Amino acid sequence: MKITILGAGGMGGRFGMMLHQAGNDITLVDGWQANIDAIRQDGLQADFNGQPVTVKLPIYSPEEIDQIGDHADLIIAFTKSNQLATMFEAVKPIISENTYVLCLLNGIGHEEILKNFVNIDHLILGITMWTAGMTGPGHLSLLGDGNIELQNFTPAGKDFTLQVIDTFEKAGLNPAYSENVKYSIWRKACVNGTLNGLCSLLECNIGELGKTDVAEPMLRTIIHEFALVAAHEGVNLDEAEVYQHIAATFTAEIAAHYPSMYQDLVKNHRLTEIDFINGAVWQKGQNYNIATPYCALITQEIHAKEQILGAK
Amino acid sequence: MKITILGAGGMGGRFGMMLHQAGNDITLVDGWQANIDAIRQDGLQADFNGQPVTVKLPIYSPEEIDQIGDHADLIIAFTKSNQLATMFEAVKPIISENTYVLCLLNGIGHEEILKNFVNIDHLILGITMWTAGMTGPGHLSLLGDGNIELQNFTPAGKDFTLQVIDTFEKAGLNPAYSENVKYSIWRKACVNGTLNGLCSLLECNIGELGKTDVAEPMLRTIIHEFALVAAHEGVNLDEAEVYQHIAATFTAEIAAHYPSMYQDLVKNHRLTEIDFINGAVWQKGQNYNIATPYCALITQEIHAKEQILGAK
Repeated sequence: MKITILGAGGMGGRFGMMLHQAGNDITLVDGWQANIDAIRQDGLQADFNGQPVTVKLPIYSPEEIDQIGDHADLIIAFTKSNQLATMFEAVKPIISENTYVLCLLNGIGHEEILKNFVNIDHLILGITMWTAGMTGPGHLSLLGDGNIELQNFTPAGKDFTLQVIDTFEKAGLNPAYSENVKYSIWRKACVNGTLNGLCSLLECNIGELGKTDVAEPMLRTIIHEFALVAAHEGVNLDEAEVYQHIAATFTAEIAAHYPSMYQDLVKNHRLTEIDFINGAVWQKGQNYNIATPYCALITQEIHAKEQILGAK
Repeated sequence: MKITILGAGGMGGRFGMMLHQAGNDITLVDGWQANIDAIRQDGLQADFNGQPVTVKLPIYSPEEIDQIGDHADLIIAFTKSNQLATMFEAVKPIISENTYVLCLLNGIGHEEILKNFVNIDHLILGITMWTAGMTGPGHLSLLGDGNIELQNFTPAGKDFTLQVIDTFEKAGLNPAYSENVKYSIWRKACVNGTLNGLCSLLECNIGELGKTDVAEPMLRTIIHEFALVAAHEGVNLDEAEVYQHIAATFTAEIAAHYPSMYQDLVKNHRLTEIDFINGAVWQKGQNYNIATPYCALITQEIHAKEQILGAK
């Protein structure tokens, strides 16, 4: 399959490398010049579960998009959520009427942006439990196992989605077809919507948050707001199950982990993706006339912290 | 006037010193042994607007309360809000049916605690714009000017309150009788309820908070919640005026100031008084069936931060 991956960070690099090794025709697009230079010069390199792996992959900046030539069968979006619109605007020339777009980004509402660039019949949504890290330009740390759930956004896209699953299966990406990917997306968004914002504001890891006596009421209120908005979109979250799912992380190995938003904001002073998590629920809530004050305040507090820290 | 001051920190020390110099009979009660020892040995010392001042005042710990002897005419409460109940429990022996209690503490709901120890006819509430700092045990930094607004909690207390005003006037404390001290208390609580919690969570000064583009909507929502609860208690806050009053601090000299809660929590890892500010509004809101989600979440976040930092 001819696949273009937008965003050659940890996850984009992982998918590019694994799909390339399974014989697919991969092109990367990335906005970070040092990353482009490193991949062009030395290839994309990874510590792949302890083994060094290097693959040669073509990579372009968004400004070089007209050098790519052929349209891709599939575009996979692995940019930051807040760069999604800009990236798709830049790569418009490689999107044809036959191109499918797969979005595996965390959060809510990406389809609202993607609809502007691709026919919704050609949209595939999903979530992934794969992880990936970058140790420097062109260098990845790819440890552990993962899987993928995905589903076409409209019934018409099912045939191609099954082809994608076949392709991912051969690359070892452990895909599964989901009959209700929106539920999975909302359920995962609840994890990010509770842990990311609060750990970033309170500057703590997941276990430290979980040990406080206010974690449970805060989490339950946030999950309830997500559930009210999700219900309006036909997704009926099991709030008690979602809470238990998140609370289980408080005492698991992942308790020592600082969520990605903490890494972005507190450690690296980067803008966060809060507008695609709590901010998306708040925005949708306003559209549907549903009060989501916890999501609203968390979104405002994170934006305040971005501005105070001079995040970029 | 025979006056006992509970809490010989900055403000208690200021009032003790100024009222002593005007000829009143002052006794201090404090829970910090190093402070007691310093004041007993060297007196209470201050940099009083550039002049060194030392006064000898009797001081007792709550455990030594039976050594005080005579009941006071007036007890002034200058403990931390969260130590108010414990302190009054300890000093019960010096409260007679003739004793008046004056509370000038920031925040909401102190009368609910004080009612348990003194007849409400003998309760005086107020706010003060005086400031005071401690530079060490027994050492104060008393700079600048201030004033006081106060009013008896019930009409029956007015005569004695006017005597207190006369006494304070002679001590240079600039008191004024207020016809609606509850309005002033709520208005000042809005200042603390917006700036203290947010600056402590975001670890910024007042000006840095004020420069963010989310400060205005956050503040207006918090003030609105205070106003809803205040209205239920017969106090009709002018929300627009209160917002302008607070927003004025964003560009004033005080913009570089970190609120006292920031000092307590972030700098000194002490428990905060959030339960007497946003937490009191949340609690009262629950009693009155008024939703106050911003106050609720800010209270929970501050308690989470206290626990994460191991505040005591």
